[in-house]
Amino acid sequence: MDQSQTQPRVTLVGAGPGSKDLITIRGLKALQSANVILYDALVDIDLLKEAAQGIQKIYVGKRFGKHHTSQEDINELLVTSAFAHGHVVRLKGGDPFVFGRASEEIEHLESFGIPVTVVPGVTSAIAVPESQGIPLTKRDVSSSFWVITATKKNGSFSDDLIHAAKSSATIVILMGVRKIKEISVKIKEYRGGLMPIAFIQNGTMHDETCQVATLNTIETILESVDNTKPGIIVIGNVVADHPSFFEEEVQRVLSSQL
Amino acid sequence: MDQSQTQPRVTLVGAGPGSKDLITIRGLKALQSANVILYDALVDIDLLKEAAQGIQKIYVGKRFGKHHTSQEDINELLVTSAFAHGHVVRLKGGDPFVFGRASEEIEHLESFGIPVTVVPGVTSAIAVPESQGIPLTKRDVSSSFWVITATKKNGSFSDDLIHAAKSSATIVILMGVRKIKEISVKIKEYRGGLMPIAFIQNGTMHDETCQVATLNTIETILESVDNTKPGIIVIGNVVADHPSFFEEEVQRVLSSQL
Ligand SMILES: C[S@@+](CC[C@H](N)C(=O)[O-])C[C@H]1O[C@@H](n2cnc3c(N)ncnc32)[C@H](O)[C@@H]1O
Ligand SMILES: C[S@@+](CC[C@H](N)C(=O)[O-])C[C@H]1O[C@@H](n2cnc3c(N)ncnc32)[C@H](O)[C@@H]1O
Repeated sequence: MDQSQTQPRVTLVGAGPGSKDLITIRGLKALQSANVILYDALVDIDLLKEAAQGIQKIYVGKRFGKHHTSQEDINELLVTSAFAHGHVVRLKGGDPFVFGRASEEIEHLESFGIPVTVVPGVTSAIAVPESQGIPLTKRDVSSSFWVITATKKNGSFSDDLIHAAKSSATIVILMGVRKIKEISVKIKEYRGGLMPIAFIQNGTMHDETCQVATLNTIETILESVDNTKPGIIVIGNVVADHPSFFEEEVQRVLSSQL
Repeated sequence: MDQSQTQPRVTLVGAGPGSKDLITIRGLKALQSANVILYDALVDIDLLKEAAQGIQKIYVGKRFGKHHTSQEDINELLVTSAFAHGHVVRLKGGDPFVFGRASEEIEHLESFGIPVTVVPGVTSAIAVPESQGIPLTKRDVSSSFWVITATKKNGSFSDDLIHAAKSSATIVILMGVRKIKEISVKIKEYRGGLMPIAFIQNGTMHDETCQVATLNTIETILESVDNTKPGIIVIGNVVADHPSFFEEEVQRVLSSQL
């Protein structure tokens, strides 16, 4: 290995929302020039085949407490890998700067004088609804969207969720799978029961699923939610664009009148 | 040309925020298989070189009223191009579903029975701040972000801007270049004058520029804004992460005390 290859440096790469061909050209090139890769739970394993053979590819995913590498361990591993092997690619689901804890990694690396580059990615917050034909903005329907996590570190609802509920923004909730019911009840107070909601899992992957309902009928979709997998909640009138929305709602209203 | 090539179909492709290597692999493949391309003002011309030679590449950009193709004209051109040539790629800046008027094009095409596919892209709303090291979310600083246009069709402020101002979300404003001053005054009412603001133009391109200030000191950056080019406004504490933020603020405070 020549000098330039062992010069420590880290590239945070957004892998995109799921499907491996939704990474950017720049992201793919970074991956191909990596000497070590640290990757997350949400990254498609197939993408790793694009990297050089024989290099270390380390899983550092955190998902519902299964295997668990703490953020401190990841920060440490980034530093030691960069000093030992040169170019480290930190492959993150979606975009690194959207709920990706990228800042913590960057600050830690820079405190060791290791240069960091960030390659943006297609975020799941936008591409997963899009994969279902749901646009986050639409002329005369929605002129803003709000991307948010449902709860704060202590488990309570974020105040921002209330502000979002009061607005006319399309609300996109990440990391909210286990809170769909509570979220729906809360937002219904402000938006009313006819507000459409979509819930999407495994977005852009072969096993993508999507359920649509209104805040009134949310109960009907809860049983098909897979609590072991992440998902995205979209609340707003743009959801009415989903092909099955109208049909399912009519079904529900009819059967509730039986 | 065989049958499959002349079968009318349209792919809406997100070109990414600017730099040509920020398109996705899937987007690039679509581009390479296009029989006609319709592209926007914000798309890097270099990207068109990736497409087949000799095909029609039609500029349909709208920018500050210079050259202007109306949305109706674009819709019409998509239909006639697809029937005449087969696979049409509609190349849009950023992501097609973020203020891209994609729904209007899709509805028009589908009313003619023309199948439409959407390929997501890296949105400028996230990648342009990211290119300046500004994360939209950051642990203990911001746990949500709101992407919004400043004004409604009639020119008045969107109510959502007030809701956003009241929240703790990072606010990302698109299409607001000519309104920076009014926006700052409005948001300052709720967030106070020390709230950081960044303004970025030509994001991810070789001539990217970024100005940082607070809502109090916004006047100092107004003169360097190029009104003829689009830009992104970011308001929130995450902007304090920008390397020049602290330094410039100290300068300003010192000189205001002279
Ligand atoms: C820690 S956040 C990281 C988000 C990522 N940085 C991005 O930009 O997409 C993880 C959350 O993203 C959402 N998510 C990511 N990929 C997804 C997919 N393919 N389908 C559904 N939800 C997804 C889920 O809400 C999940 O809990
Ligand atoms: C009509 S919107 C389309 C947004 C696009 N669909 C996206 O996802 O990035 C155009 C606005 O995007 C922003 N924008 C797009 N590309 C930009 C860039 N490279 N630098 C700064 N602002 C940009 C500006 O606010 C501009 O007015």
